[in-house]
Amino acid sequence: MCRWAAYLGNAIFLEDVIAAPSHSLVVQSRQAREAKSPTNADGFGVAWYGDRPEPGLYRDILPAWSDANLKSLGRQIKSGLFLAHVRASTGGATSRMNCHPFVSGRWSFIHNGQIGGFEKIQRALENSLADELFDELEGSTDSELFFRLMVGDGLVDDPYGAVSRAAGRVLEVSRRAGIEPSLKLTAAFSDGQTLHAVRYATDDHAPTLYTGAFAKGVGRCIVSEPFDREGRIWHEIPQASFVTMTRGGTSIRPFAPAVARLAMAG
Amino acid sequence: MCRWAAYLGNAIFLEDVIAAPSHSLVVQSRQAREAKSPTNADGFGVAWYGDRPEPGLYRDILPAWSDANLKSLGRQIKSGLFLAHVRASTGGATSRMNCHPFVSGRWSFIHNGQIGGFEKIQRALENSLADELFDELEGSTDSELFFRLMVGDGLVDDPYGAVSRAAGRVLEVSRRAGIEPSLKLTAAFSDGQTLHAVRYATDDHAPTLYTGAFAKGVGRCIVSEPFDREGRIWHEIPQASFVTMTRGGTSIRPFAPAVARLAMAG
Amino acid sequence: MCRWAAYLGNAIFLEDVIAAPSHSLVVQSRQAREAKSPTNADGFGVAWYGDRPEPGLYRDILPAWSDANLKSLGRQIKSGLFLAHVRASTGGATSRMNCHPFVSGRWSFIHNGQIGGFEKIQRALENSLADELFDELEGSTDSELFFRLMVGDGLVDDPYGAVSRAAGRVLEVSRRAGIEPSLKLTAAFSDGQTLHAVRYATDDHAPTLYTGAFAKGVGRCIVSEPFDREGRIWHEIPQASFVTMTRGGTSIRPFAPAVARLAMAG
Amino acid sequence: MCRWAAYLGNAIFLEDVIAAPSHSLVVQSRQAREAKSPTNADGFGVAWYGDRPEPGLYRDILPAWSDANLKSLGRQIKSGLFLAHVRASTGGATSRMNCHPFVSGRWSFIHNGQIGGFEKIQRALENSLADELFDELEGSTDSELFFRLMVGDGLVDDPYGAVSRAAGRVLEVSRRAGIEPSLKLTAAFSDGQTLHAVRYATDDHAPTLYTGAFAKGVGRCIVSEPFDREGRIWHEIPQASFVTMTRGGTSIRPFAPAVARLAMAG
Repeated sequence: MCRWAAYLGNAIFLEDVIAAPSHSLVVQSRQAREAKSPTNADGFGVAWYGDRPEPGLYRDILPAWSDANLKSLGRQIKSGLFLAHVRASTGGATSRMNCHPFVSGRWSFIHNGQIGGFEKIQRALENSLADELFDELEGSTDSELFFRLMVGDGLVDDPYGAVSRAAGRVLEVSRRAGIEPSLKLTAAFSDGQTLHAVRYATDDHAPTLYTGAFAKGVGRCIVSEPFDREGRIWHEIPQASFVTMTRGGTSIRPFAPAVARLAMAG
Repeated sequence: MCRWAAYLGNAIFLEDVIAAPSHSLVVQSRQAREAKSPTNADGFGVAWYGDRPEPGLYRDILPAWSDANLKSLGRQIKSGLFLAHVRASTGGATSRMNCHPFVSGRWSFIHNGQIGGFEKIQRALENSLADELFDELEGSTDSELFFRLMVGDGLVDDPYGAVSRAAGRVLEVSRRAGIEPSLKLTAAFSDGQTLHAVRYATDDHAPTLYTGAFAKGVGRCIVSEPFDREGRIWHEIPQASFVTMTRGGTSIRPFAPAVARLAMAG
Repeated sequence: MCRWAAYLGNAIFLEDVIAAPSHSLVVQSRQAREAKSPTNADGFGVAWYGDRPEPGLYRDILPAWSDANLKSLGRQIKSGLFLAHVRASTGGATSRMNCHPFVSGRWSFIHNGQIGGFEKIQRALENSLADELFDELEGSTDSELFFRLMVGDGLVDDPYGAVSRAAGRVLEVSRRAGIEPSLKLTAAFSDGQTLHAVRYATDDHAPTLYTGAFAKGVGRCIVSEPFDREGRIWHEIPQASFVTMTRGGTSIRPFAPAVARLAMAG
Repeated sequence: MCRWAAYLGNAIFLEDVIAAPSHSLVVQSRQAREAKSPTNADGFGVAWYGDRPEPGLYRDILPAWSDANLKSLGRQIKSGLFLAHVRASTGGATSRMNCHPFVSGRWSFIHNGQIGGFEKIQRALENSLADELFDELEGSTDSELFFRLMVGDGLVDDPYGAVSRAAGRVLEVSRRAGIEPSLKLTAAFSDGQTLHAVRYATDDHAPTLYTGAFAKGVGRCIVSEPFDREGRIWHEIPQASFVTMTRGGTSIRPFAPAVARLAMAG
């Protein structure tokens, strides 16, 4: 499991979320409160939107608490929309390519969770990707592959539907492989305009998800767990929810995987 | 392109090949003589056979010339059979998982060369792997995938045949994908007993390959390019050759890809 | 604070101490039991004695639990005397040069503890080193500097006296700098023949230290905390003790810093 | 020896200098034209000025050509004043702390050159630093120490004088140590407002230095060697020169080390 935080609002320094709060993401990399494993030290990353449509990306393999580059970048870079992640590997090696966020064109994605029995269905899921998305695969994690599935399932035009179909695809491929479908999906993603998040698990025990104001009139956050309690109010998002956050407001609706009637390649 | 060196004989320190000679592999990482690109600084690795049937493996992403760990390991570890490699990436990222040697059970493999148009046939080649070999894939290089193909094509029982069939498979899959088959394959591999090497290219311009005595009565080497000329005689191996080196002697025979009548999965 | 383990006896695989036990050093890197901070993920290292008088050295900056090289080296390298360490930084950056063990000629050194107010006395301590020892400094930790002081204070001829004098020097330099002397020193070191350890703190709260048999008739260990309880009996070493372990047996005597009547350079 | 490039003018993307030109700094990391050694692959770094008085800093140990983070940061970060460097080590280890730029408060510094006989005078030079500057030392290079000397010699109030006095100090300390003074100093540094550079060597063979327009009316560069010839005119700066570049213009004056009448500590 992992920890992550995403921000949408007026431009602030990345460190205002990543490093400055009392229970910041950097602190959570060493000692998370609401995670199964408290240590999230298998690398980290941040994607931020600035002067270009596609996000910037900085990922590395050290624990977030000891990376001097992250500290300096957090102090210098201002952004009105960014997604940051500290990793606790559930299997894949510690490498930059396995660190979140993952990026595709304008889209970025961070994930806390797991595809159960991934090693049994990885190839079948990869084979359902179109060539250009297969070529985008950089690492070997279930998280990255889920994101590429979302892109292939229409992320640009229909974010909710894309996640729903990708989740349905995972469940269907699991069944075909003769394994009990198991998916834990607490994730955020963005195209540089809107910030989306989902909390879902096949066993209704998805990792936690919260929204809260960064500061009144400045911006809002979506996070794995609150990064402080000082004057901030956090709302826990229920199981099986989909969050859409724009500069105009935040909406929450129920989330469920699509019933897959997918023509599977291969 | 890359540079590599392999040794078979009495146990010597790894550094006796890797670092001590005047034109050692470490020197070649900075300035190779017979390679297209002189710099081979995208990581390195060494596999050696010792007290266990499977080899030890040390790989990292720094240039070989600046890695203090490699220097110390080379001074300490003695082995009668080892394969070492310095990498010049032809595409894949600089990561440990993309560094040679690659290992599967008792087998290790190092490669200098390239599968032309790899991005167009990678998935088809992966799909011809059995599940357990697909699961062994760690990185994203053409070299590693070729090695897994060799394992799947019967490496344990028939080394020559396995390389021949894997090469044939690459050519056939290329043709099916509508691209001109292009393979450059100057590689060495071992099961801990015998050292094999191959030099082959579809255009008859395979990277160089040499054999030579390490020292009279001590051991023999197979290398990309000679690591010194001081008192050593090197034999250039012709294009389209397969080398088999045991403690009893070295044999060379012509090599050609198998004509593929392969039932391709998928 | 950090965790470490040292072994002396018949040659065993490094992993038999580092990775195999139920509460091995690798496990302790993630979750130590008797340390102030449970996480020891700011790099690791191991020094081992083999075919040469000077030890081999492998150090790197990843958490020990995620380093594939450490895993392979631990499975391959056999040694009758080795020292291993997982680091929790008390200040210095995460770099290879700041990872333990530190090496000087035949000697290796691992440390758990701290020199209080180090930043105020670092230069004075460095200036008490002879030129050739000053040149040996690679990193910026208090641990390494203490080791170089030991070497300068006669480690080769008088291990107990060297540690005692180096500790006395730290206390004296602290007093001259107007700060309350504060030293925590739970350390092990070796010349490749004898394994020494010390447990001392100015406040009598030195980090824990234990000795125990690895296996009857095979070898013995000195450790920060027991690496398992299965059939092994561990002896806690009292505060202010000096341990000398040879292949013939283990002796313990009281330890105290020397009263410094040092002519300080500068 | 190393390669570097600095820019002052309207805000541009870092990549416009670092990666986009035909003979960009990234290209020079693999194959420099006017350097003794063509390969500059022992790490890299960039300092840039943005929304804060002190610069941002990104440094890492991979060759610049293979660092995906550098590529992304270069595409995202815009700055009107930045200094970038690719390193070819003349001695110090490959570590982040030994990579340029070095930073002190608002000041940043990049260097191509060497202090001859550095190992013989390192400690004496360190001892001439005030405590707070000694504490700022992060790595072990002659370049960083020269920069800290500059800061101690009045960089804030008198940039020319500070470099002149620091250079004089190196020469004087060399003489006192009984070695022939030898200094090669082709360096740039800035406080976030003005960009300074110096070209000097005791043997009148200082590494090359050029100035040129980035684009008419946009900005100007100071570089080790031209990063392209396409429509740009480069001016070689003579030996023993000091360059001062502001948004208003560029001035060049003769440079000489101060005659040291320094009271040396220790």
